[in-house]
Amino acid sequence: MRNLKMSIEYDGTRYKGWQKQKGDIPTIQAKIENVLSKMTGEDIQVVGCGRTDSGVHAENYIANFHTNCTLTVDDMLNYLYEFLPEDIVVKSMKDTTERFHARYNVKSKTYVYRINNNRFRNVFSRKYAYHTEDELNLNEMRNAAEVLIGTHDFKSFTSLKSSTKSTVRTINYIHITEDNGMIEIEVNGNSFLLNMVRIITGTLLEVGKGNLKRSDMEKILKEMKRSEAGPIAQAKGLCLKSIQY
Amino acid sequence: MRNLKMSIEYDGTRYKGWQKQKGDIPTIQAKIENVLSKMTGEDIQVVGCGRTDSGVHAENYIANFHTNCTLTVDDMLNYLYEFLPEDIVVKSMKDTTERFHARYNVKSKTYVYRINNNRFRNVFSRKYAYHTEDELNLNEMRNAAEVLIGTHDFKSFTSLKSSTKSTVRTINYIHITEDNGMIEIEVNGNSFLLNMVRIITGTLLEVGKGNLKRSDMEKILKEMKRSEAGPIAQAKGLCLKSIQY
Repeated sequence: MRNLKMSIEYDGTRYKGWQKQKGDIPTIQAKIENVLSKMTGEDIQVVGCGRTDSGVHAENYIANFHTNCTLTVDDMLNYLYEFLPEDIVVKSMKDTTERFHARYNVKSKTYVYRINNNRFRNVFSRKYAYHTEDELNLNEMRNAAEVLIGTHDFKSFTSLKSSTKSTVRTINYIHITEDNGMIEIEVNGNSFLLNMVRIITGTLLEVGKGNLKRSDMEKILKEMKRSEAGPIAQAKGLCLKSIQY
Repeated sequence: MRNLKMSIEYDGTRYKGWQKQKGDIPTIQAKIENVLSKMTGEDIQVVGCGRTDSGVHAENYIANFHTNCTLTVDDMLNYLYEFLPEDIVVKSMKDTTERFHARYNVKSKTYVYRINNNRFRNVFSRKYAYHTEDELNLNEMRNAAEVLIGTHDFKSFTSLKSSTKSTVRTINYIHITEDNGMIEIEVNGNSFLLNMVRIITGTLLEVGKGNLKRSDMEKILKEMKRSEAGPIAQAKGLCLKSIQY
């Protein structure tokens, strides 16, 4: 049986996230499984590298699926390109080892949160960046972000309700850059809790606006209560940039 | 009476071009005049720097209007930002001389035509770039584009039917650049005929694909017949970049 690994780009605006759900809910996984099942005549199950929230985008989402289909990778790519909606593109595909698992084998993930900090929204990136006119102190944000680097219990930074599962995660870096008023917060970590990048971003935005300080970030992390952190940042600013295996 | 000059950014996807039309046709001019008229209580007529085709975008469309309204420029900008649809943004505005006329005073215009020449469309720029997988020889395109530089009768490069008006225009430059498979054709000229940039682009694409040569471009220009030139390129790839006064 073949095991195919693919890289997917999607505009998440119209979708209720990656993961398929019961009923006629539009999700990226459901769209792709549907086309792959038609293509192969099999009931294809796609394994994704993780969930993305409703409205979140991806530049390189990684997934794999097993099939007995004998089509070439090129033919499969062309078929997917023809039958997937215009906001989902499978950019590349290759045969991989039987053992490869898109979720279990993840070493780290890189997300980018985009903020347009100019006076007005940009019409061309309006669906892919959060817009705020508020003046943001990027150095204060970078300073407070340092607190989160390393292995910590990120319970304060998730929408997950009480769970017996560990909320300890490792963040490898947070880079905050700016170009012509467009700010990017790039976060790399071994894995992320539900809404974690968006809540980190929402909290960093409060720091940028001067409502919170680095010492508050330390306190928020220690308290391990969602109510301590800042608000969740809008989904449309978030994009899964890459997965490291 | 005040004369206000403004710079407008718009995503033309949903509109039937800049210019207002009879009936309930969505155009950028109609949307802006509507909001300005409500704001001032006057019947505002906006003078644009020229027409843009249905589906064409603009990064810096320039327009002006006369009013007795005493609001500050900042208040006007905020009002427009609040009441215009999300795909039209008036980015800046200033009081200008009584004589300024956004169309008559144009010295030159700069358009950019964007082509995604990667294997697949990019979901994020899918509405702002024409996609073609065809291999394009950019040097042949640059070579053929040289033929068009200067003052010529561009009758072959317009959809205008027979007219008594002159079809002589001046193109100052055509720059063709490429970055990661995204090609930009930047055209600057004193003014443009109906569909001129799109027909030039469509003809250059034929050159890029090897269907036409520089010598064909010379012939097309001399023949002064629309049927000699290449097809019109899709509207969505075209963007009005800037206006020089």
